[in-house]
Amino acid sequence: MEPDTKRAPVDKGADFANYFCTYGFLYHQKEMLSDRVRMEAYHSAIFRNARHFRGKVVLDVGTGSGILAVWAAQAGAKKVYAVETTDMANQARKVAEGNNVACTVEVIQASIEDVTLPEKVDIIISEWMGYFLLRESMFDSVIIARDRWLKPGGAMYPSHARMFLAPMRSALADQKMQEFQHSMADWDRFVLDTREQFGVDMSCLAKSYEEEQKKYYLQTSLWNSLYPNQLLGAAAVIKEIDCLTATVNDISTVDADFSIPLYEGVNRVSGYSGWFDVHFRGSPAAPADSEVQLDTAPSLDETTHWGQQVFLMHPPLRARGGDVLAGKIQMTRSKDNHRLMDVKLTNAVERGGRPLSHPVTALFYIE
Amino acid sequence: MEPDTKRAPVDKGADFANYFCTYGFLYHQKEMLSDRVRMEAYHSAIFRNARHFRGKVVLDVGTGSGILAVWAAQAGAKKVYAVETTDMANQARKVAEGNNVACTVEVIQASIEDVTLPEKVDIIISEWMGYFLLRESMFDSVIIARDRWLKPGGAMYPSHARMFLAPMRSALADQKMQEFQHSMADWDRFVLDTREQFGVDMSCLAKSYEEEQKKYYLQTSLWNSLYPNQLLGAAAVIKEIDCLTATVNDISTVDADFSIPLYEGVNRVSGYSGWFDVHFRGSPAAPADSEVQLDTAPSLDETTHWGQQVFLMHPPLRARGGDVLAGKIQMTRSKDNHRLMDVKLTNAVERGGRPLSHPVTALFYIE
Repeated sequence: MEPDTKRAPVDKGADFANYFCTYGFLYHQKEMLSDRVRMEAYHSAIFRNARHFRGKVVLDVGTGSGILAVWAAQAGAKKVYAVETTDMANQARKVAEGNNVACTVEVIQASIEDVTLPEKVDIIISEWMGYFLLRESMFDSVIIARDRWLKPGGAMYPSHARMFLAPMRSALADQKMQEFQHSMADWDRFVLDTREQFGVDMSCLAKSYEEEQKKYYLQTSLWNSLYPNQLLGAAAVIKEIDCLTATVNDISTVDADFSIPLYEGVNRVSGYSGWFDVHFRGSPAAPADSEVQLDTAPSLDETTHWGQQVFLMHPPLRARGGDVLAGKIQMTRSKDNHRLMDVKLTNAVERGGRPLSHPVTALFYIE
Repeated sequence: MEPDTKRAPVDKGADFANYFCTYGFLYHQKEMLSDRVRMEAYHSAIFRNARHFRGKVVLDVGTGSGILAVWAAQAGAKKVYAVETTDMANQARKVAEGNNVACTVEVIQASIEDVTLPEKVDIIISEWMGYFLLRESMFDSVIIARDRWLKPGGAMYPSHARMFLAPMRSALADQKMQEFQHSMADWDRFVLDTREQFGVDMSCLAKSYEEEQKKYYLQTSLWNSLYPNQLLGAAAVIKEIDCLTATVNDISTVDADFSIPLYEGVNRVSGYSGWFDVHFRGSPAAPADSEVQLDTAPSLDETTHWGQQVFLMHPPLRARGGDVLAGKIQMTRSKDNHRLMDVKLTNAVERGGRPLSHPVTALFYIE
């Protein structure tokens, strides 16, 4: 375990066990390849801007099954380096061969941090986004690739990313509280039984058990695919990333104030929902012919596998239409695992410019 | 990843991420402490043989929440060393204090391989059994503890273990085959869609996808709590372990022939079921006053959290009452993770002393 994510080196064995192993399964690749919103965005970004790919050298960071690399080749790239650390690299090689672009697409099985390319590249393409954009911390690897291998004036695909936060309502809030209470009632029975039947008093662990269960049921953010009408106010932008210039320092924390008027008819706020979008605008030197956006906001149309992250407040906030939710979100990387996130949400309800009560702070874990 | 489990050292970071992390949750400890069959066996083994614990020095390997250590102290042990590698050690300390045996029970947070005790011990107690006994490979650590810290003439609790295999029937066999076929039909649609919509041919991955899905749906052994009447013949003992003398070499493989007559009325065999029992017989120098057994066989009474492991044959075997299932089971540790197991099952149906067909071999993974 890492005592400090900033200083401790990443344990590669644990990182593979916890993280990369997932991407070694074709089933998981297929899930991502079946996400039409994701697929259409990248497909459009490449083929509507084929002019920018023609005759160029491209690097695909974390190619997985190789789809982006194949598209780049089909769009006319001269050479595509497709880097993948898991054994999925073997499948990517087959996909390049099966689609007759094996002479253009060179699959390299290595972590991007260890790779040496024979030349610098014109374009870096990557699908690096995790839940709530930054989970997985994969953009760190893209930054390393960019700083080492992107030519001056080169382009990032995607070029920009944003994170959003909006107040929301959900029946999940009551459900999770009930599950938590049920779990604690079960614990009480367990303590009684263990004392009576086996002569050991476990009540000394009650506080720790409650903390553990609270973290699990009430403080772990949830994946959810929300309907737009569950949102109770306009989303606030809490982070903007320019993929061409962002540093690891820029992206390892989020720290943003927000002030969101609630829609008419609201009487209760269950918590907050977070999501992201990314844009394909090419680069200042070579702007996209056609800008493309990949949006993971709640939608009535086809939704993405990213869904939204939900942070439920317990108890819910009493507030009504026209009130303003004023607060702050701070997100940092988890101490125990740099690919997970800790979120601190502080908020208060304001009415007529004045706070109705003291600010409330809640801690969440994106697991 | 480990290229060879026999030679490669275990990656401690990966092992913690994959294995020990589970035992860091009180929820998981509570599940084990709520397994009455398990609890009653260990409780009886200690208190019915309290004479052997009185005034003795005890080592508890992997104490978890500390229950066995507390019982040993309550039974009159002079000193109990309770070794636990995860942070659960802190909870075990609280349990010892909360039950007024903190002066006897010394909780040591370390892996048993790294620990140095100030003295040798009279008794080693441990709940080291995984699914199908050997999953988790935790007995390796108990062997190290025994060879380093058990006095000559000392006792192991439990003292003996056995593994069983029996033919069985289950509706799961058809269900898993249907799930597999459904998954492959879904793959075919995916390949068509990806080619039509996105111009990439993924059919080159069909074979790999089929292998992956076959492994997942058909070749991964299943946890199940069987009814006794699902068994179609008497169980064969496929492994016997004397905990006082077994070496890591002895327990790292299972290689046993079996020959099991089928009960009357059988017309189809879905596969095999495996389980284990352990015995508390004290030691040759200090035999138990009252032998205790912990049995995880299919039962109509209260069952254990271990349940049984189920290995389903596809297709099922055609056989009838009086036929003999003759075969061989070979179990080895997984190359990628020494705590998981690979199982090779070869069998043939014999009628009147002659095989009805060639032997069939199936591979399984205990994940």
